[in-house]
Amino acid sequence: MPRLKLTIEYDGSPFSGWQAQPGAVTVQGELERGLRVILGTNAPDNINVVGSGRTDAGVHALGQVAHVELPELPELDPYRLRGSLNGVTHHAIAVKDLQLVDNSFDARRSPHVKCYEYRMLRRHARGGLREHQAWVVKSDLDLLRMIEAAKIFVGEHDFAAFRSSDCNAVTTVRTIEVCELFRRDTELISLVVHGRGFLKQMIRIIAGTLMEVGIGKLKPGEIEGILASGRRQNAGITAPSYGLTLNWVRYGVGVV
Amino acid sequence: MPRLKLTIEYDGSPFSGWQAQPGAVTVQGELERGLRVILGTNAPDNINVVGSGRTDAGVHALGQVAHVELPELPELDPYRLRGSLNGVTHHAIAVKDLQLVDNSFDARRSPHVKCYEYRMLRRHARGGLREHQAWVVKSDLDLLRMIEAAKIFVGEHDFAAFRSSDCNAVTTVRTIEVCELFRRDTELISLVVHGRGFLKQMIRIIAGTLMEVGIGKLKPGEIEGILASGRRQNAGITAPSYGLTLNWVRYGVGVV
Repeated sequence: MPRLKLTIEYDGSPFSGWQAQPGAVTVQGELERGLRVILGTNAPDNINVVGSGRTDAGVHALGQVAHVELPELPELDPYRLRGSLNGVTHHAIAVKDLQLVDNSFDARRSPHVKCYEYRMLRRHARGGLREHQAWVVKSDLDLLRMIEAAKIFVGEHDFAAFRSSDCNAVTTVRTIEVCELFRRDTELISLVVHGRGFLKQMIRIIAGTLMEVGIGKLKPGEIEGILASGRRQNAGITAPSYGLTLNWVRYGVGVV
Repeated sequence: MPRLKLTIEYDGSPFSGWQAQPGAVTVQGELERGLRVILGTNAPDNINVVGSGRTDAGVHALGQVAHVELPELPELDPYRLRGSLNGVTHHAIAVKDLQLVDNSFDARRSPHVKCYEYRMLRRHARGGLREHQAWVVKSDLDLLRMIEAAKIFVGEHDFAAFRSSDCNAVTTVRTIEVCELFRRDTELISLVVHGRGFLKQMIRIIAGTLMEVGIGKLKPGEIEGILASGRRQNAGITAPSYGLTLNWVRYGVGVV
């Protein structure tokens, strides 16, 4: 069966996350429903849109990637299919790109690097125009200390202290290739993290921990000890989901 | 009476614009309602929040500025008042700054420069994460030609061709200090315009005209003739309101 690669942008606010679940509106569920509507009687019993990974409820994506196998149909032109999908799915989803790929391509298993961005808005007021796309932090943040702490996450580490208590990954060793903070404007601070894979809520716990460094509750020098302890309670709080965006996923051998 | 200066961010989507109108939810109306709630029995008959200018329905602001006069009350600490206002107004409004100013300060009449940004998203899909904050343009845009055309707007011109048909400004001569286009990412193009004042829908008509230059419907060399004609029908379409954001307003003598 032909295999298609989808690049998808979505506002995570209205969705119960990526993963399809009965009785909940999810991004995967919407894409599968849309394909069933378009294929009609040609729809196979099981349409499975496989994402590069799950995103939690409220998390956004500028460039999530997924693949799906569809029956061979002469009328299935990828360009038209993308248009149809954008016509029938939830308006907060935009299928930006859709192309035929080799059947060896697997959005989840093919080697790839993901880029996540976590946005913190330093202000006393609410989020305003960025209400659902940034975490409002009401205390002063010492960006230089946060940058110092962020560097410690780079490289291969056991991130057992930086995963949610219900994460059931077998191994907790992950590699972070980039972990950088920068000021986007007078109020907005972005944390950008690149890596091949992350534990459940790992980026959000790193963001919450760096926020605690920023407000002076933790010192940059304490990060190594938290990693070594492997204990979730030693790390900072889990930053809220709506501050997080999956910016892009890049595939290829030896990708960085 | 003490005069306060407010700096306000808002997501324009839920509002019928800035200006208070009976039976409509507006930003000015929300701020005045919030102040009446907070002042209670101390509220004067007429609370008038004066903005630097009106924004149309759907237009956003990162830094709209307004002033208001309130009765002298010992408990009216600006810092606490800002918190209270953020607590009682519509959640899409964020009062970012509130301070006591000299009674000579007038958000509308004091000399100032405004910066507007118009965002165009070049893609075939819907807006996704930027659905309500950018205009989706489905044709290829030639950015270099758009930049060439944008330069022609800089300086003092009669913008009669670039105002809505119901604009009732007495004079149509305005000065644009900056009119620049730049690529924010692979899809997003921003138009940034600075000036002391604009006619009704002037920025949106400039944006629509530059889009038409971008798709090849108009040539950069035609802009001068459109300005000279003074006829609205010669300019391009009015770009939709939700692509526009009032980024900031800067006050001061000789400000640029």
